[in-house]
Parts: sequence; structure tokens; C-alpha cells
Amino acid sequence: MSSQSGLQITVIGAGHGGKAMAADLAARGYAVRLYNRTYENIEVIAIRGGIEITFEDGRRDIGYLRCVTSDIAEAIAGAQLIMVVVPASAHRDIALACAPHLKNGQVIVLNPGRTGGAFEFRQVLREANCTANVTIAEAETFLFASRSEGPAEAHIFRRKNTLPLAALPATQTETVLSLVQEVYPQFITARNVLYTSLNNMGAIFHPALTLLNAGWIEATGGDFEFYIDGVTPSIGRILERLDRERVTVATAMGVRAQSAQEWLARAYSAHGDTLHEAIHANPGYRGITAPRTLRHRYIFEDVPYSLVPIAELGRRFGVDVVGMEAMIQLACILHGTDYRHRGRTLKRMGLEGLSLTEITRLVETGEDESSQP
Amino acid sequence: MSSQSGLQITVIGAGHGGKAMAADLAARGYAVRLYNRTYENIEVIAIRGGIEITFEDGRRDIGYLRCVTSDIAEAIAGAQLIMVVVPASAHRDIALACAPHLKNGQVIVLNPGRTGGAFEFRQVLREANCTANVTIAEAETFLFASRSEGPAEAHIFRRKNTLPLAALPATQTETVLSLVQEVYPQFITARNVLYTSLNNMGAIFHPALTLLNAGWIEATGGDFEFYIDGVTPSIGRILERLDRERVTVATAMGVRAQSAQEWLARAYSAHGDTLHEAIHANPGYRGITAPRTLRHRYIFEDVPYSLVPIAELGRRFGVDVVGMEAMIQLACILHGTDYRHRGRTLKRMGLEGLSLTEITRLVETGEDESSQP
Repeated sequence: MSSQSGLQITVIGAGHGGKAMAADLAARGYAVRLYNRTYENIEVIAIRGGIEITFEDGRRDIGYLRCVTSDIAEAIAGAQLIMVVVPASAHRDIALACAPHLKNGQVIVLNPGRTGGAFEFRQVLREANCTANVTIAEAETFLFASRSEGPAEAHIFRRKNTLPLAALPATQTETVLSLVQEVYPQFITARNVLYTSLNNMGAIFHPALTLLNAGWIEATGGDFEFYIDGVTPSIGRILERLDRERVTVATAMGVRAQSAQEWLARAYSAHGDTLHEAIHANPGYRGITAPRTLRHRYIFEDVPYSLVPIAELGRRFGVDVVGMEAMIQLACILHGTDYRHRGRTLKRMGLEGLSLTEITRLVETGEDESSQP
Repeated sequence: MSSQSGLQITVIGAGHGGKAMAADLAARGYAVRLYNRTYENIEVIAIRGGIEITFEDGRRDIGYLRCVTSDIAEAIAGAQLIMVVVPASAHRDIALACAPHLKNGQVIVLNPGRTGGAFEFRQVLREANCTANVTIAEAETFLFASRSEGPAEAHIFRRKNTLPLAALPATQTETVLSLVQEVYPQFITARNVLYTSLNNMGAIFHPALTLLNAGWIEATGGDFEFYIDGVTPSIGRILERLDRERVTVATAMGVRAQSAQEWLARAYSAHGDTLHEAIHANPGYRGITAPRTLRHRYIFEDVPYSLVPIAELGRRFGVDVVGMEAMIQLACILHGTDYRHRGRTLKRMGLEGLSLTEITRLVETGEDESSQP
């Protein structure tokens, strides 16, 4: 398969996901540039000129890349579509690095944004006085389940059938989709970034399951099935409570978020009277072992960039998020850091002092107080 | 061994601990009456007239009881020493039941009080307008490690060498000790009930270890060593944090509490650079398996009657107890109840509105505002 569109794509980040996406796109004939901050991690790719990829169906290919670089200016020059595939903790640094080099019309997609990724990216560009007229969008989660076994290798296990995406503001979503759907027709419209940000299921599952199985993880090196063994009936009830807090925050902001049970039913056809039952009814969770250590992105990414921003929005709009706060507090103690302070606060998202009406206007049309005449 | 003292002792509560204490005392010749609220649970003892007991050294005996009853008036009439051996959740009901029948000079010892047991007992007697001049005391923990394998059987595994006890007020401690040391010379003086209440190590160990191993407990029915497997380095650090909060609450109230590490060194000669190391250095913890279920007194007793009162005192005196609060919150969600409301609040302890000076005067001399002229 080869593309004739001439679409210039930059993939930012050469972890498991970034290598898979870059190789997948390049193998299909797109002009792909791959950026990684640390050149050592992409040196082998640069020498070989591409990434070997194996697909879901066992097929193998090589994705030859146009450019492999740790120079952000070189990476994004001329790109129409910039796919950011980095941990949410790096969004800020990527935005800062891109800011001086962005050009009008470029589209930046956060894969995924976790919670508030587009808000934070936009805010950083504003603070860096970036005047280029770019569009920022965020995906609800990552398109692939993928793993990289070697420095220039990628393997895609599964691909989601549909993946909601929203631009900030939502008036730009169709423009972004017309671009990204050319390469990934799985992307579908989310109403706005509050939907992609508040339907972040990792916020609910990852920290709680890690913390409530903390002893087990550390004592055994994660030698148990994370969702099957780690979600007992009581743990399921705690997840339900956290999930209800998340959905209530969304409701308070005028957003009809999916419950975890609705999401399991839609995404995996996994049904159950309780969340515990629905999780156990999902064959996709079988065989997924627990993290091997408590120093894991399920805490150090999902607490500051998923739970913290949801809890911040909850407090701002009068929702009881004490369950989330307990998880955040435990994570802070576990890692000896202040994830509340280091995470995505309202201020970092550029939402401090905005009313719900103003936030809604911002996500829908891009207008906010400071852009009023 | 037989006693000639004629000391009349009532043991309140016929659980593992109550049966062991009643049988131990009776076997040594004391006149012992045993009370239990539910008669069915003591019927076999009443029929047999006593409790078979096996001791630490393998010796067997039978403790014949003077009276086995669920009539509290009959149970405590004429008793000089009333040993309360019930979960802290029952202290209130026991106090209410005793209130109309108490006589001047009787001594009530809570074995143990957990945190604030003597305060709550005193407060309930006051609210019930009990005018008898009785003395309330609390022990720091329970004297035995004991288990009851049958309806009229008890087994004592281990006996503590020393066990701090304080009366409320502390001016009565020596009077109480002169009585209880006749039967148990292991009792020693604690400075006042703030010491016995704030040196409650179960508050630190029990809820946190249960919650941070919740999935493991429920998935395996507690099939691992609670302290040896369940206390990993990270869990140890969380325990250290909670313990520091407890010791800081004590310090803020002018009490020099022992740290968990100091306590392990003193009580078990278990030393280590970290709490994790010290716990693993304690042979007494080997072989203790985890709770089989999350419906366990480590949550439903230790959260409302240990953590909640310590956290209440912390908030009252300006100490950051966010770690404890996270544990309390998690326990509330786990059990679907409000342990903060149901637990030992300042109000239930009769401490609401009292300044530190007033609380100190209360524990030292028994005077408080309402007993001022």
C-alpha cells in the first residue's frame, strides 16, 4: 500500500507507541519524520533508515522514514500533521520546544491527551507567545496496543475500531478529522475536548488498581493478572465510586461522560451487573499482568495528568471527589512527591478563574476572556 | 496457684480475649464473673461452669467461673475490678449498660481502649447521669495473644512482658495499678490516657496494610504473610509516613509518643534502619497470615476507633494528617459507610471545644470546664 497524497507527517516521540505509528504510516507510503528528544534512543533507526514492523495479522514490513532527528525545527518543518505520541508529562516540554517553529495551518494531535492535554498545550503556546495559527486536538486514548522489542522494531497487537478525537476549539474538529482520517479512518468526532478529557478511563483504573494492589505488586514483581486477579468485588466497588465521581464532574460541566461499564460494553462488548463483573467479562483483560514495580506510569503519569485535573475540575465545580483525592494523596506518599502541585492544575490548563460558561465557550469556539476585545 | 485475696473480678466480653482472661484468672483462684451480651455465645460455658484453657507452656487447666451471665447488673454487682475485653465499637454500649449499676469505688479497665476509649466511656457515663464514683482506665493493647477454638475453650500463645496502663485522670493510675498488678504484674504506669491512646500501633499498621493489600487479600482469601509479604519497602514507607503523622499529633499535644520503630525495638527487640527492615526483623510477625476478608476488624474497628480519633485530634491541633485521612476515606468507600461520622469524634470523646490546656488538665487531674464551679 502506498500513499499518493503527499501528506507530510511528523511523529513526536519514539517510545512503543511512537515507533509503531511512525513505522505503520511509513510502511503505507506516507512521508514520515520521527522526532525524539534523546538522540541515542533513535540512533539505530537513523542508521537503518527505518523501523521493522510486524502487524496484527503477522505481516512484516519496514517503514522507511524521511528523517529521524532530535532537532524539533527539522522535525516539524513543513509537516501538515504532527502526531504527538509521548507521555502526558512531556506535553509541556514538547509544546515549549515546538512553539518557536510552528507555522500557520499545522495540526497537532495528542495521542492521547490524557486529561487536559489540549488545554495545557494551548496554554504553553500562549505563554511562549506563539502566534502561529495552529490547531491542537486530542485523542481519547491511543490507537494501538503496541510494543517495541528492539531499538528499530515495532509490533502492533491490536488496533481500536473507533477512537474519539476533538480539536480545541471544537469548530476545528472536522478540519482535523479530514486530515487524520486519511491515515486513520478509526478517528471519529468527539463533541469537544471536555469529552475526550473526561472519558479518560485510565484515570479510574490505573492508579486505584495499582495502589490497592501495591503490596502484591511489590512483593511478587507484579506476578498476577492485573484486571482479573487485581479487580476483586471490593476493588470493583471502589472503582465504581471513583468512576461515579468522574462522571459527576463531567455532568457538572454539562458533559455526558460514559461510565466505565458503558465504555466496557461499547468498546469490548463486556457486560455485567457490576463493574467487577464487566471487567471479568472482558477477554481483552486476560493475560495482562500487573506492573512489575510501583514506579510505573499508572501512578506517575495517570495521577498527575488524569486524576489531578479531573479532581481539580471537580473541586472547581462543586463535586465531591474525595475518593480521587484519597488516591492522589496515597500516590503522593508512595512516591514522596506532590502530584497535586506537579500535575495538571487549572492554572497549567489555562482554566484558572474561568467560569463554566467561559470554559464551554473556549472548548466550543475558542473564545475566552483574554481573546475578547 | 490459688488466690486468697478475695478480689472480685468481672470480665466483660466472651470473645477470644475475654474467654482467655476469664479462664486464666479463674484457674488461678480468683472469683470471676463473665458477662456477654449474647447469651447463646456463653451458654456452653454456663452449662459446663467454666472454660478449658491451655497456656503458653502447654499446661492445661479449667477456670471455673462464679457466674456466667448476660445480665449486666448481676455481672458487675460487687466487682472491684471490671475488665472490659470487647471491640472498641462496643465500649459505648457497655458503658450505657453499666451506667445504672455502677457503685462507688469500682475500677473499669478497657483492654485495650484503642484511641480515646477512656474518654468515650467517661463521656457516656456522664451523659447517662451516672453519679457513682468509679475509675476508668485503659490499657495500651491487649495482654495476650490468644485464640478460642471452641465455645468453652481458650488458648494463650504469648503474654506481653509489660503493658502500659493509665487511668482517667492520671491521679488514679496508681490506685488502679495496685489492684490490677495483683492479678497481672505486667501492667505498668503510662503517664496518662493520651499516652495509651496515641501509642496505638494498630492504628498505623492494621488499616494501611489491609487497604494497600486489599486486592491480594480478597483474591487469595488472605493467603500470604501479612507483615512479611504485605510490608514491602514502599508499603513500609507509607507506614512510616502515617506513623510520623501519629507521633506529630502526640507532640502537638505535649505527648512524647513512641515511633513504630522504637516500639518494635522495645517490645520485640526488632531493629532496622527503616520500618520495613524492623518489621522484617521481628520473628513474632512470621507466620501471621493476612485477614481472610476485607470485612475485618483491622478496618471496621481500627479505622473508626483508632485512626479517626487520632486524625480528629490532629485536625483540632493543626497537624497535617492527610495520610490518615486518605486511609479513612478509602475505608469509608470500601465498606460503604462513613467511619468519620460513626467513629470516635471529639464530641463522642467529650473533648469538643476543649483547649489543649483543658484536655491536659482533664487527663491529669480530672478537672474540666464543666466540673469547674
